[in-house]
Amino acid sequence: MSHTVRDGQKLIARVRRLKGQLEGIERALEAQKPCAEILRQLASARGALSGLTAEVMEGHLHEHVLHAETEAERRQGSEELLEVIRTYMK
Amino acid sequence: MSHTVRDGQKLIARVRRLKGQLEGIERALEAQKPCAEILRQLASARGALSGLTAEVMEGHLHEHVLHAETEAERRQGSEELLEVIRTYMK
Amino acid sequence: MSHTVRDGQKLIARVRRLKGQLEGIERALEAQKPCAEILRQLASARGALSGLTAEVMEGHLHEHVLHAETEAERRQGSEELLEVIRTYMK
Amino acid sequence: MSHTVRDGQKLIARVRRLKGQLEGIERALEAQKPCAEILRQLASARGALSGLTAEVMEGHLHEHVLHAETEAERRQGSEELLEVIRTYMK
Repeated sequence: MSHTVRDGQKLIARVRRLKGQLEGIERALEAQKPCAEILRQLASARGALSGLTAEVMEGHLHEHVLHAETEAERRQGSEELLEVIRTYMK
Repeated sequence: MSHTVRDGQKLIARVRRLKGQLEGIERALEAQKPCAEILRQLASARGALSGLTAEVMEGHLHEHVLHAETEAERRQGSEELLEVIRTYMK
Repeated sequence: MSHTVRDGQKLIARVRRLKGQLEGIERALEAQKPCAEILRQLASARGALSGLTAEVMEGHLHEHVLHAETEAERRQGSEELLEVIRTYMK
Repeated sequence: MSHTVRDGQKLIARVRRLKGQLEGIERALEAQKPCAEILRQLASARGALSGLTAEVMEGHLHEHVLHAETEAERRQGSEELLEVIRTYMK
């Protein structure tokens, strides 16, 4: 399933960029940079994390719901997606 | 499709309760109630709106993805769900 | 305090518009409109509720923190604002 | 300002823990762990990032609004806080 592996590589690259953003926040805190700047970096990290999460949700919907191999897998994939949606909609 | 109609009734009842909460906020603003109280009412309305939205998303996933009648409908239902997810994950 | 009253009128007008949006959602549910349309209306209501909440938070910060009459009032106003922030950042 | 430095140390420790969570997500993606597990780890990272952000906002409110040294600093600190609030309430 090279399709999945390629997607995985893209996701891993996104996680690494996000880690880089957190390292920037760590350095900004160590250098006692202004709060306002740190708050902007945190907002940007949140955007990156949300985008990454939306991409994993999209992949999950494609792989485990839309292209599920059995009805049981499709039901389980849907249930897992709903669990995530409920977490974010609280 | 009595199943859908019954679900529809439940959702309509939730929308009406939420409208009632907004009327409470309107009255609180008119009576110049303390901000802190109004902010708590707003947070509670947000929770109600999120819960309602999660329920509509769940219904959509069940009806238009899980129990879609054709593959085309299932693909469209998924695409619509993703559009919503992306909106909330920004 | 005509300033506050005028702001109050603006906020009441926003709550009423939001109530109008919910009535639209109620009618859409009654007419069994497509889920995708209802989900878009719900997302729009959420945006309106968030904007309204941000405006009340802004008013609270101005009135009860920035222009608090005593240090005690300022401390209390800050504590109330933090309570709200923590609710939304969960 | 040892108070600030101590708070800074606590915040740095939180950023490092969050980086550790992201490393866990990176490993889970590399090991092609189930999506549902990765989605749970992402939700947990979001909670950690939100908690960290709320703490920085709290520190900002204390230092640059509540205990601002001048009225000008207090106004600026408030404006910066509102900018962040508006970002999160969109």
